[in-house]
Formats: sequence, structure tokens, C-alpha cells
Amino acid sequence: MTEKPSIRELGEFGLIRHLTGDLKMVQPETRLGVGDDAAVCEYGNSKVLITTDLLTEGVHFDLIYTPLKHLGYKAVAVNLSDICAMNGTPKQITIAIAISAKFTTEMMDELYAGIKLACEKYQVDLIGGDTSSSMTGMTLAVTAIGTAQEDTITYRNGALENDIICVSGDLGAAYMGLLLLEREKRVLRDNQITQPDFEGNEYLLERFLKPEPRKDIVDILKEKNVIPTSMIDISDGLSSEILHLCQQSNKGAKIYEEKIPIDLVTQQLAEKMNIIPTTAALNGGEDYELLFTIRPSDYEKIKGESKITAIGHITPASAGCYLITTGDSAIELKAQGWNPLA
Amino acid sequence: MTEKPSIRELGEFGLIRHLTGDLKMVQPETRLGVGDDAAVCEYGNSKVLITTDLLTEGVHFDLIYTPLKHLGYKAVAVNLSDICAMNGTPKQITIAIAISAKFTTEMMDELYAGIKLACEKYQVDLIGGDTSSSMTGMTLAVTAIGTAQEDTITYRNGALENDIICVSGDLGAAYMGLLLLEREKRVLRDNQITQPDFEGNEYLLERFLKPEPRKDIVDILKEKNVIPTSMIDISDGLSSEILHLCQQSNKGAKIYEEKIPIDLVTQQLAEKMNIIPTTAALNGGEDYELLFTIRPSDYEKIKGESKITAIGHITPASAGCYLITTGDSAIELKAQGWNPLA
Repeated sequence: MTEKPSIRELGEFGLIRHLTGDLKMVQPETRLGVGDDAAVCEYGNSKVLITTDLLTEGVHFDLIYTPLKHLGYKAVAVNLSDICAMNGTPKQITIAIAISAKFTTEMMDELYAGIKLACEKYQVDLIGGDTSSSMTGMTLAVTAIGTAQEDTITYRNGALENDIICVSGDLGAAYMGLLLLEREKRVLRDNQITQPDFEGNEYLLERFLKPEPRKDIVDILKEKNVIPTSMIDISDGLSSEILHLCQQSNKGAKIYEEKIPIDLVTQQLAEKMNIIPTTAALNGGEDYELLFTIRPSDYEKIKGESKITAIGHITPASAGCYLITTGDSAIELKAQGWNPLA
Repeated sequence: MTEKPSIRELGEFGLIRHLTGDLKMVQPETRLGVGDDAAVCEYGNSKVLITTDLLTEGVHFDLIYTPLKHLGYKAVAVNLSDICAMNGTPKQITIAIAISAKFTTEMMDELYAGIKLACEKYQVDLIGGDTSSSMTGMTLAVTAIGTAQEDTITYRNGALENDIICVSGDLGAAYMGLLLLEREKRVLRDNQITQPDFEGNEYLLERFLKPEPRKDIVDILKEKNVIPTSMIDISDGLSSEILHLCQQSNKGAKIYEEKIPIDLVTQQLAEKMNIIPTTAALNGGEDYELLFTIRPSDYEKIKGESKITAIGHITPASAGCYLITTGDSAIELKAQGWNPLA
């Protein structure tokens, strides 16, 4: 009898494949189950998108430096991001929360202020949930529901050879924000007098603490009449997400270091902390930008758009997934994104 | 400045009201938000039901006496029960799980065996989820999605004066099962040699460890052409659920002790443990039976049905909610169900 691989060995995606690989869908309304940013159901000619995320204290967030209002906002935002990654429109959310005895009504009010702010900003209805206690710490489970049109819904598996690989916004900033918060937490622990020094780095903190789902990108694509061939949101780092798109589309990719959009503040702090900025972008994660591919013929339509950057193109699967560095060497992309089960 | 009430003072429902009372729905697809067994959305002429529950280790389940397969089954069952309580048909679920380092692949396989068994039995598709780690113990968040027809969907607020109050199955058994497991856990702690003694009480254990959503009742009502005027599932105990129906319908109720369906095994163990069987039924909870009201004119249609018992009738709100005992005294119903935030 061969022993089963451990959960650590399997990793998050391996475990999900192991547990759900044999599932068979039986309901006629189910169009797509496990494996993309959101599941897809069809109700009365509407494509309904459904996605769930669980955030646990000490693993996904540290309440020492995460204001509860930001946590509430972020818990909603990262789920809406999954709906956007299907080229969909977020419509509703449910929230289930477990809290330990240390939480007060005031703290819950703060958390809900963030939840409500995100709902208001993205015109999403909070339609249900569950509130309960936990033995330790806080757990938040958010389910987001959205809609997409039959002809514009975008999966991870549609990338075609020669497609242009695009990302929204800039990358690596959230990771540098996290490193900054972790550094200041250590400083504060050793020295109770010093005040945290975040001056000039507010952008990085905001990127980590208050990410925004890129609904604006979904709107821009619609306006410019561009239907991406594949799309995913960047939660685990650019490398990991490109590998997801390529695996599911059975393709390869070539991206160019010089093209990866990195903000000047990200770059400066990375260099100060002896981190290669490209590494922050490739492996950092939590940027919640959109990574997508478009047909070469659509490139002209988005060329002038400052919020979107073309960073490479899709190749045959046999060519593998590579980063071409500024020094013109080819480095194979590896999934070094965060493993929540490690 | 008045101080805010504590979470303990507010209780689960008070806290939810406090946090969500000011919500305004903006999406045209949202038909009903927080406040019933499930939220209701309308997608392309289909009524889509959505409900979420969070189960945390040490609060909702004790892994010392809960086999993981049963836990997986129950986590799905209790959510499907919420869909049934809207007179709907469960269609899909998503599951988000956080596990601590003590969990192995084999344990996750056991959990998923239960999840898959429930899905198979109720023909529900597991369409998505999230797997992550927690600092301590296990947390399970399940979202169930279902459909209902415009003209048969049943809310909590539709009970009318003189309606007959009905329950499915029998009550109090799950609570006696829990007490039995707790008793054996104490015995085992004090005495490692004794084997747990469950003989003759298997029904009670099964009722607690492996509850079934009453989809069969939804089917029977449909078949007999009965549309309940209001419905809720019994998760917190009969008292608490009758009060929910009456509050939301702005009505009163009179139920009769002698009519409350209690299994003989439940009755015998309750008496052995010095518990009044009616108390187990009223306050025990976790039976996941359906409590519903029907028009008096529909009574003939369900009269012979062994799975359904009429236990009383709806009165004007001013008459309050009362239990008429076998001794013919009237006792006001109080919500003494389990408060997960206490």
C-alpha cells in the first residue's frame, strides 16, 4: 500500500485536485465546477458566477497591523476580484464570521464599516451570512455572486498561440507593503517608543491593506469591445498565475522583465530592502490585478490605455513558460507564490 | 454617550440585526437579503436561493466524538436544510475549509467522503471552494445554492391567522444524542477501560451526527399541491423557530404539548436523564426538521401523511405564543435555543 502524500506535499492546488478530481456534475444548471476563478451556473439564460474565500486570523491577516475596517473591505474586495476575473459583474455577497470572546460590538462595527464601504463602492448587495463564535481568533468566509454574458465570460483555458499577455495596474506593491508592515511590527516589538515609519510608502500599505477589484478593467474591455481569450486575477504572484493560465490553456508563455509594470515606490523600497523588484512582482502576490490574454488583432484597441500593460505573448506548450530578463537571458517561470498550506 | 451593548447581550440575531439593519439593496436581481433561511435573487426569471453557514471546531462540533465523514455530511445537510426551508430545491454548494497542521490527507479524504455522500444523496453539485490553513482547529464554511418557483417559494413571514402549524419527523432526538455523546465523553475521560454504551440509542446518535435535510417533505407538499404560508427549519429548537415565524408574520401561536412528535427512544433516554422530553423538543435544536404553516383548507390534503404532524395553530399577535401543556396550562414560549455567541 502506498502512503498518501501529505497535505504539505500536495499544496493547496494539489489537495483541491486530490479531493475534487473525481467530482461529477449532475445538475443541468451547473456549467463549470471547481477549477477557475469562479464556478458558473446557468439560471434562466443568465450565467451566474459563484466564488468563495476563507480568511483566517494569523494565516491570512494579522490584526496587529490590519485595521478591522480594512480587513472587512479586503475580504469583500478579493472575492469581487474573482468575479471580475471571469469578466463578470459582481452583484451580491454573503459573509460568515466566527469571532472569539475578545471581539466587541465596536470591533464588529468597524469590520462591517469596511464590508459596507466595499459593497457601496462596487454596488454589491450583502444578502446573507452567519455570525458565530470561534475558540480562537477570527475567521471570515465570503461568497460572491455575479453575472456574466454568455459571449463575454472569460475562463482560464482560452489562451491561444500568439495572444498578447496583459496585466492591469502595477505589480509587487502589495508584497512590499506587507514586508514594510512586518518590519515595523518587529521594530515596535523591540522598541516601544519608536513610531512606525511609513512616510512615502503609503501607496504600498494601501495596496496591501485595501486592494481594489479591477471592475474598471472589465468595464474598459467592454467599452473597447475586447473579449479576453483567458483571464485570472493575481492573488499568488504573476509567475503562479501565468502558469495557471498556460496549464489550463495547454500553452506556453514568454514575458519580458522590462515590460512588467512596477511602481517607482515599489522599486525604491525593494532596492532598499535588497529585494529584486521583479521578484516582488513575480512571486509577491496579493496585488489582485487582472492577468489576461487578448488576440493580437485586438491589441490596437487597448494600446493607449494607461491601466493596461502588454508584458509578453503566448507560445506553444512545448516552448514552456519563460521570463526574458533585461539582460536577455531566459528564466523558466516557477510557482513560488504563497502556499497557504505550507 | 451610551455604551453599545456587548455581543453577548445582543446574541446572534441581535448582532446580525445591529450590523445589517441599515443595509439597502441596490441590485435589481436581489429580491430578499438578510432575514430568512436563505437570500433570494432573481436571475433570468429563476428564483435563486443562497445561504451560508460556518461551523467551527469546539463550538459547532467536537472531533472527539464526531467522525469526519459525519461532519462533512452534516455540514452539507444543514445548508441544504435552509434551501428546503424556503420550499426550494438544492442545486449546488461551495465549501471553504481551514485546517490546522494536525490534519492529514487521510482525514481530509474522510471529510470529503461525507461531503460527497451528501451531495450524491441530494443530487447537489460541489462547484467550488477554498482550502487553507488555520492556526487552530478546523473551520468549515458552506454556501448552498438552490432554486424555487415564484409561486411556491415560502418565506417566514406569510403565516395567517388560523393556519395549522405543522412539523416534519420528530423532535428532541438530536439533542438527546448530543447529551449521550457528552456523557460518554466524560465517562471515557475518567475511565479509559469502559467502552461507550450507546446500545438502543443509535437513532439518537444518528439524528445528531447525521441529520437529513427534509427534501422529501418539500416533494410531498408539491405532490399534494400544498403551498405552506410560512416555513423555517428547526436548527435552534421548536420554541425559538415558532417565535421567528410569529415575529416575522406578526402573529401569535398556540401549540399543544400532546401533539409534539417525540420518538419513544428520545422519551425514554430523556426520562432516564431527568429531562422533560418536551423540553428537549422545544429547546434542544439541531433536529433540522421543517416547521411550517398551512391554510386550514389544506389540512385534509396532508392529514394522512405520517411524516407530518399538526401541532397547533396561528393566533393574532396580541394572543402571544403559548404551549398548552398536557395538564392544560398555558406556558409562554421563550427562545431558549442555543446561542452560538454566548
